[in-house]
Amino acid sequence: MASTQAQATTQRVTAENGIEYAYRDLGESEVPLVLLQHFRGNLDNWDPALIDALAAERRVVTFDNVGVGATSGTTPNTIEAMAHDAIAFVDALGLERIDLLGFSIGSFVAQEIVLIRPDLPRRVVLASSAPQGAPGMHGWAPDVIGAVGGREPNPQGYLDVFFAHTDSSREAGNAAAQRIFGRTTDRDEPTSWQTRQAQYDAVADWGIPNYALLERVTAMDLPVFVANGDSDPMILPRYSHLLAGLLPEARLKLYPDSAHGFLFQHHEDFAADVRAFLEEAD
Amino acid sequence: MASTQAQATTQRVTAENGIEYAYRDLGESEVPLVLLQHFRGNLDNWDPALIDALAAERRVVTFDNVGVGATSGTTPNTIEAMAHDAIAFVDALGLERIDLLGFSIGSFVAQEIVLIRPDLPRRVVLASSAPQGAPGMHGWAPDVIGAVGGREPNPQGYLDVFFAHTDSSREAGNAAAQRIFGRTTDRDEPTSWQTRQAQYDAVADWGIPNYALLERVTAMDLPVFVANGDSDPMILPRYSHLLAGLLPEARLKLYPDSAHGFLFQHHEDFAADVRAFLEEAD
Repeated sequence: MASTQAQATTQRVTAENGIEYAYRDLGESEVPLVLLQHFRGNLDNWDPALIDALAAERRVVTFDNVGVGATSGTTPNTIEAMAHDAIAFVDALGLERIDLLGFSIGSFVAQEIVLIRPDLPRRVVLASSAPQGAPGMHGWAPDVIGAVGGREPNPQGYLDVFFAHTDSSREAGNAAAQRIFGRTTDRDEPTSWQTRQAQYDAVADWGIPNYALLERVTAMDLPVFVANGDSDPMILPRYSHLLAGLLPEARLKLYPDSAHGFLFQHHEDFAADVRAFLEEAD
Repeated sequence: MASTQAQATTQRVTAENGIEYAYRDLGESEVPLVLLQHFRGNLDNWDPALIDALAAERRVVTFDNVGVGATSGTTPNTIEAMAHDAIAFVDALGLERIDLLGFSIGSFVAQEIVLIRPDLPRRVVLASSAPQGAPGMHGWAPDVIGAVGGREPNPQGYLDVFFAHTDSSREAGNAAAQRIFGRTTDRDEPTSWQTRQAQYDAVADWGIPNYALLERVTAMDLPVFVANGDSDPMILPRYSHLLAGLLPEARLKLYPDSAHGFLFQHHEDFAADVRAFLEEAD
């Protein structure tokens, strides 16, 4: 069995919905931690240092959702459909109780999974997140979508959004990029333009302002750890406050000198916080 | 002119609404800071140490709103009416631009003043606050209203709600109580049962759950400092997060080892934070 994410090979499982999901599976624990990836990210886009730090004490499952990377099918254009697709994957692995860690659009999917199938998740980590209907997040700011939404890869744009505009954060960003792009064998498939378009449609739909929809997350009756970088330009830290104010049982941490990719930059601290949060339920 | 709150005499001014308001006025600055008091509080219930620390660099005006303490009239039973009453007092003093610091029910009144007359306040401090319509705050918890809502004064109940259940916070609570009750001359009138009933009606009305009303505070288009104790049982810290998530321009600080009366316990730190916040606009 692989002992680091860099060695973890991509596995496949076919679910009841006929989709063949690509995933990686590392570490051991009774309740596995299932991760939900960011906009346009595939298996390789998880910082291996973060996955290794989490997997030191837990079973950590990363996967490509429908239409993403090496998983078959077409990426749907709503968060709700993505949540059903993620549940189908979890069912295909035979998992009946999981912890969830959703990052960015993955954190929207995590919320929806909790609402659709409340008995499945035990605890949830929402990284760089926001509740559906929150005002001011209908699509990302022009400089943000310009940086990460183009047809061609834009490493500088990625750094600009995922890391704060300080020397220390940029240095951490370059180190994370080296870890992420350092893998040479068994790399995942790149995500397609279809995935980009469908995911951004879903993000826009999630961000249509609607104060009544803020009530939805009050049904998330389980412990939630809300986390973000203090300078995230993609999903502003104020939405983490909003979640912490609405959720029945939330704790909040904003990590210093960091942006959307705070969990890669502060991978050791964040993984320690996540492990401590999950261990309370073991 | 008095140089400490303990020496400040009670003054009177009659407003256009025919009400004679009791107030105290300390320190000097171009834009005065007007304070809005907590449930059942009168002029004496402001910790003199807090007022002195604020007035070291600013003009600080404390007053009894309509029907409260030595001010004439009958206490109204809505936050909106209290806001109009406070505006009438400010107008009577001839103030055209003020900073506001509202504490507890006074922070609800402060929000309403900003919404009713947005050109009047420059900056606002909301201490132990919550937005109208927030879920879960329809009336105070039974042990809280039991402790502070009775017909007879209940010093132990006050300590239980205003201070955390730690030795350090209790010690701070006893010290604050000694300062508050140490004044022997020119004490204010006690607040009446009519005031208690009307204010609690207004608090219950403010707390009727209504997610649509959460949108109201997004119209507060000015810098807001949201502050609370980390263990406030009367207005939970989650509502400070909710405010910070909804307000266009908020900063948030939760003070450690403290409860509803965090601003008395941490009077030096809190006054320094407030002064720094207001000085940015001077």
